[in-house]
Amino acid sequence: MTVAYDGSFYRGFAAQPGLKTVGGTLASTLHRVTRHEVDLVCAGRTDAGVHAWGQVVSFDLPAAGLDLGKIQRAVNKLCGPSIVVREIAVAPADFHARYSAKARRYRYTVLNRDVPDPFLAPTSWWVPQPLDLHAMVMACDPFIGEHDFASFCKLDKGRTISAPSMRRRVVDAHWDDAGDGVLQFWIEANAFCHQMVRSIVGTIVDAGRMKKHAGEITAILRARDRSLAATLAPAHGLCLWEVTY
Amino acid sequence: MTVAYDGSFYRGFAAQPGLKTVGGTLASTLHRVTRHEVDLVCAGRTDAGVHAWGQVVSFDLPAAGLDLGKIQRAVNKLCGPSIVVREIAVAPADFHARYSAKARRYRYTVLNRDVPDPFLAPTSWWVPQPLDLHAMVMACDPFIGEHDFASFCKLDKGRTISAPSMRRRVVDAHWDDAGDGVLQFWIEANAFCHQMVRSIVGTIVDAGRMKKHAGEITAILRARDRSLAATLAPAHGLCLWEVTY
Repeated sequence: MTVAYDGSFYRGFAAQPGLKTVGGTLASTLHRVTRHEVDLVCAGRTDAGVHAWGQVVSFDLPAAGLDLGKIQRAVNKLCGPSIVVREIAVAPADFHARYSAKARRYRYTVLNRDVPDPFLAPTSWWVPQPLDLHAMVMACDPFIGEHDFASFCKLDKGRTISAPSMRRRVVDAHWDDAGDGVLQFWIEANAFCHQMVRSIVGTIVDAGRMKKHAGEITAILRARDRSLAATLAPAHGLCLWEVTY
Repeated sequence: MTVAYDGSFYRGFAAQPGLKTVGGTLASTLHRVTRHEVDLVCAGRTDAGVHAWGQVVSFDLPAAGLDLGKIQRAVNKLCGPSIVVREIAVAPADFHARYSAKARRYRYTVLNRDVPDPFLAPTSWWVPQPLDLHAMVMACDPFIGEHDFASFCKLDKGRTISAPSMRRRVVDAHWDDAGDGVLQFWIEANAFCHQMVRSIVGTIVDAGRMKKHAGEITAILRARDRSLAATLAPAHGLCLWEVTY
């Protein structure tokens, strides 16, 4: 399933006992609709408050008597409008939403205006200080290519001893000026480690405020030291846009 | 003040004891910020769930030592991001947000797609059935000009005996196709009576579903009979866009 959701209403994707999460809501609804217990796999485990337009979710169901359109309509009726199944299809037996993914694309929206906007507030980071878009464009360059992103990744709990590799290959990172102060950052990589996009955006916006320049960013990347990167950009500006298989 | 708000979070504009309203929230915040009790007047008393981009609110404050920028920032900090003061200015002494207004402009958004959208859901009416936009464009014509809109207006409680005039002058009513199933209805009039825009949109969308044609709409308008109009379009698609003085 390709799923869009407004993350404002959820404590992230991953199911957690006692918390309202996207994955938990989808799994219990699919159970109700199909009468089968399903184990959901998602392409990217979004954090609390992060949105998705093109999250991909896979799970197993018996093929007999499967009416996909009916499942989609039923899930949308029960979970909507904050979670919407945009597409649903049968995948090859070895398809895995996470391991089969070749690339993930995220969008991060900054609202750079004097005054906030009630309609854009749920999906953008309001930055009232003047931003130098040219500096922010320059600050994207150091991230492109294959790097160890340890400076921009949060080590998950219990993983401090045998840390997994933080090498990731970024194939695109650029800003679109959508006009009227709406700045959209697009980034695509084979995969992302935890909080990587928000950490990169925090650093690039610092460059836009003239607190950092592109040369410093290269040094931070090379240092592989989490304490050097800027504060995280807030979760609600981030959206998992598309997953490629 | 020119005020934008996401009406999802409020029971309309007008202050009501014990209910969270836009006017009540603004009045108590202005009291806290300026240390003066203010009586708010607004250009259009929006119903529960209705949004605004350009609501205009007037009130009296002593001129001495007035720092408008400070008031704006303080109100936005305390009420934001669901209510935002976009502009604030000193008006002539006889200015009245309601009585001085020459025209009001509303926008109504319909999302005409098979599948809903979690990000547009709070500000649009999702209509999955096919709509004939040409029929909806034709259905605007009967509304333009000065008419008695009794068929499209809700009589407020306690006003059944000596009903006020429902004559209004509509100077513009048209649809914009914003692409990707987003249809925006714009209507401007000297003033609107209660629920007039939502009632007109409900009727025009019926025309788009081929349940009514433009000739029937003219007959409904002439009949001055509330029971003939279609169901109200839902509140959350409506937005008070601009007020002209």
